[in-house]
Amino acid sequence: MQKTPQLERGKIIDVAADLFAQKSYAGTSVRDISHALNVSIATIYYYFKNKEDLLFTIIESCGNDLLLGLNQACEESPDALQQLNCMLIRHISLTQEKKNELKLFVEEHDHLSKGFKNIIFKQHRKIYDTYVEKLKELQKLNVIEEESIPIVAFAIFGMVNWCYRWYREENKLSIEEVAQKLTNIIFYGILNTEARSQTASFLSPAGEK
Amino acid sequence: MQKTPQLERGKIIDVAADLFAQKSYAGTSVRDISHALNVSIATIYYYFKNKEDLLFTIIESCGNDLLLGLNQACEESPDALQQLNCMLIRHISLTQEKKNELKLFVEEHDHLSKGFKNIIFKQHRKIYDTYVEKLKELQKLNVIEEESIPIVAFAIFGMVNWCYRWYREENKLSIEEVAQKLTNIIFYGILNTEARSQTASFLSPAGEK
Repeated sequence: MQKTPQLERGKIIDVAADLFAQKSYAGTSVRDISHALNVSIATIYYYFKNKEDLLFTIIESCGNDLLLGLNQACEESPDALQQLNCMLIRHISLTQEKKNELKLFVEEHDHLSKGFKNIIFKQHRKIYDTYVEKLKELQKLNVIEEESIPIVAFAIFGMVNWCYRWYREENKLSIEEVAQKLTNIIFYGILNTEARSQTASFLSPAGEK
Repeated sequence: MQKTPQLERGKIIDVAADLFAQKSYAGTSVRDISHALNVSIATIYYYFKNKEDLLFTIIESCGNDLLLGLNQACEESPDALQQLNCMLIRHISLTQEKKNELKLFVEEHDHLSKGFKNIIFKQHRKIYDTYVEKLKELQKLNVIEEESIPIVAFAIFGMVNWCYRWYREENKLSIEEVAQKLTNIIFYGILNTEARSQTASFLSPAGEK
């Protein structure tokens, strides 16, 4: 590998993220990473204290990218609902752009020791708070009526964080198109106008209590 | 452990599911399971060929329970939308009743060897098909208009399969109440009637194209 230190470090991170995502963190050794890069184990240890340090670097960077993306999305419009729309599109697009990293962010943080884990949990909390604040703002503006904002936030996280499991680039729809469709489901639900009014009697729609 | 073989086997499954869910499959040994049960390792091997056999037994049984639950839900009403409602309530309730098992069903099937994995993938496919068939039926009945049924199915799976990560029994809402709220989000979305009609111009609602 003939690269500047910054490029070499970045390449190690990319390859490690790929291997951790494919073979799981527990199933990947530093030796596997060095083999895949065709460098010595010492090269890896020059940049990272150990395997956990590598995992933490990947996960923390993914959390930072996500938080930055959500904040940038809020600047794209003065309208709070448009902001939530942009947040969702950005978040879902990231599940494709940073597929490996997001998988580790969601699934592998349990392997981190307490200090590292606390930093990641703070990121999780910040992401949760970013959504909850936007949803509360929309509630104040009388755009959504559902009183259980945390349940709405968890519904969003579930839907969004499932994407890297099923979306493939070779799908007919681009990730942006998928993102808009998922956002529409969150905003408008799947029932059409007629079914919506007809079923209000036997179910208790979130927005029509 | 003074139990009948059936009870003893069931107890091993429960404890293994608990340990696999808490410490991950890779992080749990057969010795850990025997210690937690206060039995010899030979007792575990009397019932199960190896650790993988145990994991497969837990995951397959969870998949069967889920498929049975979804089929039973369809028998609770002659109305297709009520059937989907019942399927979602049943599915979400199972994420609490079989919390450990569902976590393994979702997260740990990668540890299974090819033959076992194929059996589990067939279950995943059956569950997916059960939802897709119901959604297509609703589309034919002109209850939902969204043309991308697979995206709706994946939106549902994401929302539902996220529940075991955040729902705790000590929450103010019962799992059945949470299930109805999540189902309402899927059916009706989070926007109220006014916001829904006002925003139809800048977004393209799923049901109003």
